[in-house]
Amino acid sequence: MKNQRIVLASRPTAEATLDNFRLETVDAPAVPDGHVLVRVHYMSLDPYMRGRMNDTKNYAAPVALGEVMGAGTVGEIVESRQAGFAPGDKVVCMGGWQELAVLDARQPGMVRKIDASQVPLQAYLGPVGMPGVTAWVGLNKFIEPKAGETVVVSAASGAVGSVVGQLAKAKGCHVVGIAGGADKCAYVVDELGFDACVDYKQYPDEKSLGAALDAAAPKGIDGNFENVGGMIMDTVLSRMNAFGRIALCGLISGYDGQPLALQNARLLLTQRLRIQGFIVSEHMALWPEALAELGMLVATGKLKYRESVVQGIAAAPQAFLGLLKGKNFGKQLVKLV
Amino acid sequence: MKNQRIVLASRPTAEATLDNFRLETVDAPAVPDGHVLVRVHYMSLDPYMRGRMNDTKNYAAPVALGEVMGAGTVGEIVESRQAGFAPGDKVVCMGGWQELAVLDARQPGMVRKIDASQVPLQAYLGPVGMPGVTAWVGLNKFIEPKAGETVVVSAASGAVGSVVGQLAKAKGCHVVGIAGGADKCAYVVDELGFDACVDYKQYPDEKSLGAALDAAAPKGIDGNFENVGGMIMDTVLSRMNAFGRIALCGLISGYDGQPLALQNARLLLTQRLRIQGFIVSEHMALWPEALAELGMLVATGKLKYRESVVQGIAAAPQAFLGLLKGKNFGKQLVKLV
Repeated sequence: MKNQRIVLASRPTAEATLDNFRLETVDAPAVPDGHVLVRVHYMSLDPYMRGRMNDTKNYAAPVALGEVMGAGTVGEIVESRQAGFAPGDKVVCMGGWQELAVLDARQPGMVRKIDASQVPLQAYLGPVGMPGVTAWVGLNKFIEPKAGETVVVSAASGAVGSVVGQLAKAKGCHVVGIAGGADKCAYVVDELGFDACVDYKQYPDEKSLGAALDAAAPKGIDGNFENVGGMIMDTVLSRMNAFGRIALCGLISGYDGQPLALQNARLLLTQRLRIQGFIVSEHMALWPEALAELGMLVATGKLKYRESVVQGIAAAPQAFLGLLKGKNFGKQLVKLV
Repeated sequence: MKNQRIVLASRPTAEATLDNFRLETVDAPAVPDGHVLVRVHYMSLDPYMRGRMNDTKNYAAPVALGEVMGAGTVGEIVESRQAGFAPGDKVVCMGGWQELAVLDARQPGMVRKIDASQVPLQAYLGPVGMPGVTAWVGLNKFIEPKAGETVVVSAASGAVGSVVGQLAKAKGCHVVGIAGGADKCAYVVDELGFDACVDYKQYPDEKSLGAALDAAAPKGIDGNFENVGGMIMDTVLSRMNAFGRIALCGLISGYDGQPLALQNARLLLTQRLRIQGFIVSEHMALWPEALAELGMLVATGKLKYRESVVQGIAAAPQAFLGLLKGKNFGKQLVKLV
């Protein structure tokens, strides 16, 4: 049995390129005691992976050169050497950018069996997985919105942003998305039910983007779920009401190493704002509650989501580079079966 | 009876200057029912006053042109038309930049009687007043330091910073001050008991200031009480440990309208930091507990403080401009009797 995988071939010096990745075909890995072999059905592509390509201080260790890129995956066990796991079990695990992954099933949480009867398997990589829990934690624990408040979400049509906005709507908030392109904005309002969505591609500077935000959020902004950073974050910041809260989840505009200054930092003081940076994997105690709620919402059709799927491991690097530029529309997945 | 006072003559276009102030001599104000007339003994000069000279969105209404500049004051009642207040009572109130002030004693908290037998009257403008409570609230409610953690305080020899550091030391923290000049740094370490103090005037750029901070805070920084902003804040930010907390109290480096970008904003995410801007007057529920603790610490000599006193209302503008440039050494007061 052969395994195709993508390894980090070189580190980006600025923008990541296809040259930074290498496709390899190797023998299927051996399965030691306590481990399982998983055939990956879907792997997830997420912006945080860009940070791990750098050899710099970050919240996770960098991927080593020549090492398989990490990724959340869903799949099926094809061989098990650990009691409680059997071939045919559907699981979610960090299988990485490859078709076959060996994982230590003895470690808590490393291989989690999932029920694909109520929601599709790949939803465990989206609204009922890491992106969904990220949205849930940032909104509920750091923005803590009250009914009637205005919440703004950047990257609103994405895997995280789309959940943030729908959860905030359910709490009675006025919800404004920021997304790139008329199609995404229409989807955010018409399908997801946000009150408004601002197409940042139409507004090249803070002044024009700010005017559009003012129209969409006439009472100012109380909560900001920030996925982007840079000019978009500064513009939102300048519209924050007193005592506003910012859940800082991602800075996709700066993942290629661009300077990422917060120009309007003065407002943090004058408006008495709170910014909280967070990583969802450090809030594991909240996952069960979040997943239970998200799973119910997806199973009952109350939480909508959208996927961008490419086929085959060889397509992963190009899809990932597109994700960093906002070319995906919904959760970016790679289908491997 | 005549009253000398300082009014706002014009708004600064950049740096504030003496021309922005005007000394006036007027008749002592009449005392309506429910009011008291206070002879001001000491008035407080504080950085926040600079913000109120601008006609821009801020946490407090701007001072109107021709209006008396606001200030916290301590003094003695010379005439009372409100039961419960009598001539000779020592009080703390927002008397403003003037020798005689009329205040509505019916409004809760507007005129507060104080006991000057245990601590000097003017301490109610410093460690047992707004600056002390600011330190207490920012440290205890927003930094929430644990024993063994490292806390860095900018403007460390000032009215707020000096209290922050002493309270943090009492909690078992490693405490590092940042101050301007060898005299201030020596005072912060030798008199106030900080573990170290970095003289920012010796280090013109982030690299050299950062090296000095590394030496003073070898385990990184867990809590930052920020009074200054700009390059100093960015340098501290770049040394923050994961899950660090920043209490954002002041941005004195930007009070003249300079751009005040946070260059290292990316670290808010990668280090999962929290920044909380705050204004102490919005946390009134905490004042009684804070004042009780601070009063006890001052009365028993456990909390040290230092004052910079100028004599006479006419000296106030120059002293205020000096305060904005860090020329004061300790709490800046104007003595009016």
